[in-house]
Amino acid sequence: MKRSTLTSGALSVGAFLALALLSPPLQAAEATADAVNAYAIDNFFIFICAVLVLFMQAGFALVETGLNSAKNTVNILFKNLMDLSIGAILFYFVGYGIMYPGEAFSGGFFGFGGFGIGSVAPETAAGNLHPAVDFLFQVAFAATAATIVSGAVAGRMQFKSYLIYSAVISGLVYPISGFWQWGGGWLSALGFHDFAGSLLVHALGGFAGLAGAIVLGPRIGRFNADGTPNAMPGHNLALSTLGVFILLIGWYGFNPGSQLAVVGADNTNAVMLIAANTTLAATAGAVVAMFFAWALFKKPDLTMGLNGMLAGLVAITANCDAVTYDESLIIGAVGGILVVAGIKLLDVLKIDDPVGAWPVHGLNGVWGGVAAWIFGGQPMVAQLVGSIAIPLWGFATMLVLFFILKAMGVLRVSRDDEMKGLDISEHEEEAYYGFQIFTTQ
Amino acid sequence: MKRSTLTSGALSVGAFLALALLSPPLQAAEATADAVNAYAIDNFFIFICAVLVLFMQAGFALVETGLNSAKNTVNILFKNLMDLSIGAILFYFVGYGIMYPGEAFSGGFFGFGGFGIGSVAPETAAGNLHPAVDFLFQVAFAATAATIVSGAVAGRMQFKSYLIYSAVISGLVYPISGFWQWGGGWLSALGFHDFAGSLLVHALGGFAGLAGAIVLGPRIGRFNADGTPNAMPGHNLALSTLGVFILLIGWYGFNPGSQLAVVGADNTNAVMLIAANTTLAATAGAVVAMFFAWALFKKPDLTMGLNGMLAGLVAITANCDAVTYDESLIIGAVGGILVVAGIKLLDVLKIDDPVGAWPVHGLNGVWGGVAAWIFGGQPMVAQLVGSIAIPLWGFATMLVLFFILKAMGVLRVSRDDEMKGLDISEHEEEAYYGFQIFTTQ
Amino acid sequence: MKRSTLTSGALSVGAFLALALLSPPLQAAEATADAVNAYAIDNFFIFICAVLVLFMQAGFALVETGLNSAKNTVNILFKNLMDLSIGAILFYFVGYGIMYPGEAFSGGFFGFGGFGIGSVAPETAAGNLHPAVDFLFQVAFAATAATIVSGAVAGRMQFKSYLIYSAVISGLVYPISGFWQWGGGWLSALGFHDFAGSLLVHALGGFAGLAGAIVLGPRIGRFNADGTPNAMPGHNLALSTLGVFILLIGWYGFNPGSQLAVVGADNTNAVMLIAANTTLAATAGAVVAMFFAWALFKKPDLTMGLNGMLAGLVAITANCDAVTYDESLIIGAVGGILVVAGIKLLDVLKIDDPVGAWPVHGLNGVWGGVAAWIFGGQPMVAQLVGSIAIPLWGFATMLVLFFILKAMGVLRVSRDDEMKGLDISEHEEEAYYGFQIFTTQ
Repeated sequence: MKRSTLTSGALSVGAFLALALLSPPLQAAEATADAVNAYAIDNFFIFICAVLVLFMQAGFALVETGLNSAKNTVNILFKNLMDLSIGAILFYFVGYGIMYPGEAFSGGFFGFGGFGIGSVAPETAAGNLHPAVDFLFQVAFAATAATIVSGAVAGRMQFKSYLIYSAVISGLVYPISGFWQWGGGWLSALGFHDFAGSLLVHALGGFAGLAGAIVLGPRIGRFNADGTPNAMPGHNLALSTLGVFILLIGWYGFNPGSQLAVVGADNTNAVMLIAANTTLAATAGAVVAMFFAWALFKKPDLTMGLNGMLAGLVAITANCDAVTYDESLIIGAVGGILVVAGIKLLDVLKIDDPVGAWPVHGLNGVWGGVAAWIFGGQPMVAQLVGSIAIPLWGFATMLVLFFILKAMGVLRVSRDDEMKGLDISEHEEEAYYGFQIFTTQ
Repeated sequence: MKRSTLTSGALSVGAFLALALLSPPLQAAEATADAVNAYAIDNFFIFICAVLVLFMQAGFALVETGLNSAKNTVNILFKNLMDLSIGAILFYFVGYGIMYPGEAFSGGFFGFGGFGIGSVAPETAAGNLHPAVDFLFQVAFAATAATIVSGAVAGRMQFKSYLIYSAVISGLVYPISGFWQWGGGWLSALGFHDFAGSLLVHALGGFAGLAGAIVLGPRIGRFNADGTPNAMPGHNLALSTLGVFILLIGWYGFNPGSQLAVVGADNTNAVMLIAANTTLAATAGAVVAMFFAWALFKKPDLTMGLNGMLAGLVAITANCDAVTYDESLIIGAVGGILVVAGIKLLDVLKIDDPVGAWPVHGLNGVWGGVAAWIFGGQPMVAQLVGSIAIPLWGFATMLVLFFILKAMGVLRVSRDDEMKGLDISEHEEEAYYGFQIFTTQ
Repeated sequence: MKRSTLTSGALSVGAFLALALLSPPLQAAEATADAVNAYAIDNFFIFICAVLVLFMQAGFALVETGLNSAKNTVNILFKNLMDLSIGAILFYFVGYGIMYPGEAFSGGFFGFGGFGIGSVAPETAAGNLHPAVDFLFQVAFAATAATIVSGAVAGRMQFKSYLIYSAVISGLVYPISGFWQWGGGWLSALGFHDFAGSLLVHALGGFAGLAGAIVLGPRIGRFNADGTPNAMPGHNLALSTLGVFILLIGWYGFNPGSQLAVVGADNTNAVMLIAANTTLAATAGAVVAMFFAWALFKKPDLTMGLNGMLAGLVAITANCDAVTYDESLIIGAVGGILVVAGIKLLDVLKIDDPVGAWPVHGLNGVWGGVAAWIFGGQPMVAQLVGSIAIPLWGFATMLVLFFILKAMGVLRVSRDDEMKGLDISEHEEEAYYGFQIFTTQ
């Protein structure tokens, strides 16, 4: 979402103008009393939405943990904890200043507005956000982009290299492309529309994960010598399902919150429409993915249903403000088909993405950007340019980073360590002590 | 809850009337500025409450999963995911139009207001809800009614038949009886009071589940030849406990949100009273169920404490707006006793309800409706009629549906499939790969 | 947090005064219309914050369960359920009246304002809270203090004695020291500052837990004859990590909600600043604890990262309203070091605190109080007095209680029962039926 500006919603402005016809003392006092309430509501709204988006970190942690084997549980949980923790600190110091450098950099490719975030409250008016809550909302998005990659590189990447990756994407890669659109850079000048980040958050993370999966190579045993894939099922689908439900809940902060204000009839109505559209796309994605996979594989597969819901959520994120209920169902349904097809495509290409991060976030992020043109009435050229530029940026920068880490010999763990599992080899810690059965699956 | 109307809270109306004595331009401008804020607050409030109620889907999934054996985990999780997903889509297409058909059907038994939901925003005023958020709140309730049944039929029902059931209850059965009361039908005309759905949601689901449990018959090994029951303990009480905590949290959307507005002193005060009453009933239910079961069985049993909290929550749902704090404690305490007694009663009757869906939601739903008469000052006849009619409707319609499915031979899985577990037989998918110990418990 | 008063935020008051210059009918009508909105917003805000704090009960349950062995799972979950349930009922009956006895007891050590809570709504104005929602917010804090102890005494305490402890702390010990500060007692008169309860909630619980751990003695096998410690790893770090994420989310109710109002520019700005400070301290705590433990033990340890996040959260709780972003990072970072050092210190002292309740809540609670002096500009003497008095109160009263229970022979389970695990010996209930491997670890 774009950063909030100092203009209030249409109706509030209208009310203010009507008041301007009255006597000055009344006008000032009235605007103030109403504005105080409006300021509280809008900041409270974004605060709660930020909390919901932060909750998505738990969702990602559970989805990824459950879809991987038990022996990598500690490692995955730890990566998620650090995506948020390192991400918040780096985004505070530099990322925020890169993403929102200010007017001077309008239409550009890179800018820097200074270290840290402001602590000075803006004028008390509808739509104005305190810098602290604006930061909180933004940092939750940055952590989301970072954590998407965790699943794609699960089971074989060194922990310390992951921390380096996490710092680079939160502090640099995400804020730069974020600036292109939400900070007022060149994509924004082109007329590109990505309401809540199908591309800026999800496709960026999804394609970064794809780069990681390619450079790392598949887990041992994932593909046979003849190229046929072996399933490596997750160890706890209860955790994964809980994770998807938490992500769904978090998305009600992600999409509706990206309106950045709820006061003013236009804002209120937009937020509510977005919430319903998000729901319809999510549920359509789940249902269609289930039936499509059922038709293909002859059995209803839970993980396909779960990924279908996430696919629908990612796909609606760019355009939820601009489409109808019925179009939301279609966008989600197509997402449900794409995610199943994308998972099979990766098998054919012999790319090992353990949780389907690319089919869910990468492929459907692009679909979301394209759907904003097809259904959302956004300009075709801008949508296509943005839907190519952002994934390319994420993929290319991360490809370079992962190659550097590989060249330094710190990217992948040893064969022995991978077989033992990263919990023991990287952390000397069992996730399920007194419980776990170690295998060399 | 009844659907919101266009009238604002008492105090707002009063303020407006006071303003009407002033000069016309001022009056219009002022009403607008205040109304814009009030409209934002009320819609934001219902939006957040809807999110909390949607979170209950995760709670139900975990409670049911944990209370059943490991071999049916994928199946239960998948059913819950689909209750929400299929439910939302069907409720969007037909359920919403059946439940709220409009004035023309006042006092009737069935009506239809058209497909889909409105996208036109109402007049900007306190208490008015955008159709999108009204739908979101309603659909979360419909999904709750549907998912209650999942637990009662766990471990032996075919997945495809469950999907049919889920579609029928979300799209047809729940909306029809919902219309009777909240849509302005005959029960509403009679003066029945069911504030947030002890009967319309919980008893409906609980008695539908009872019908399912009866027609399906017990799981293999649940009762001995001499009629004595065997416990079939759940495989993960950590998940179940987390599920109950999530349900408690979700109930703060369910009950307080059913006031449908928070602006206006009467609404604000009602919402806060309802929240406290909900808490007191829930905690009284947990404590009393624990001690009651402790006295009966000589050991404090966690699942009884958990079911006691849910029982208290269900029981207070119909009357939380109309009783005192102390009465809430009594209503919850009685709920705690009823749920323990209900579980034993099912054992005596040789009905296998694996999670206690009927004692929690059915029995305590009825108790909630009756308590609205005893403590809440609602008319006796209306309360008794409603507290019989709704459970009967859920039980009878679902009995017919389950018998039809049984006659078609698609209701229950084979003996072999049940022993293997539904995860393998229905989904070819293990919930805990590399972990799970398959038994024929 | 102090209880809300009848004065509204500075700006609202300003608006009201400006209005007072206008004609009387207008003034009354206007104040009312704005006040109705403001009253709704503030009560809605505290309601949502209360729900977030209540969600922390699930977080504590999961953290403690996951960090202990599988054989004590039911016991720990049950204790958490009862901390909330018994706590809410006792706090309703007596705790609330002890904690907020009214003006007559200003500056004192003990007072009692009567049984129960009020149901009469206050004047409709910004900042005024309905007694029901004030109670709900307060009871969630009381339950938090109670439940902290659960982890410290895990694995060896009799269930019925735990219930007695839980009743005493929720109904008596916590409300008494709570009154000293937030109820207007002697600490408040001294000028002590504990914004959201680093001391009143966390250090109280942490030092109460320390008393319990000392009187109970270590679990069998925790220390060798020569005094060297044996690690007794938790059985499910996925649950523990989810628990920490839930606690983080809940803390956004705990700290920002303790402002007790969001309307009025000063309140709005404070809430947002507090939310950002809370985030920065939490993430700094996690990162620093990870690197500090990594340096000490040569491996990155997930439980240290998790405890580091909690340490940062506890440390910022007393002072989040009074420090800058950068100071928040420092306070959290120091918390991350303290928690690792505290865990090692307990090992040296041969005190067995299975989840690190004292390092996290006790030690960092004190640090939070001291940091309010060092960074937050609060008076040194008052901060030091409060940071000693509260922990001492929690430690001394609970030491007495635990000694009495020990003298009565009901404190600790038998050696056999401890080896079997409390789930079987205290509850005759397995947490993971068909799954669990019982060991005598």
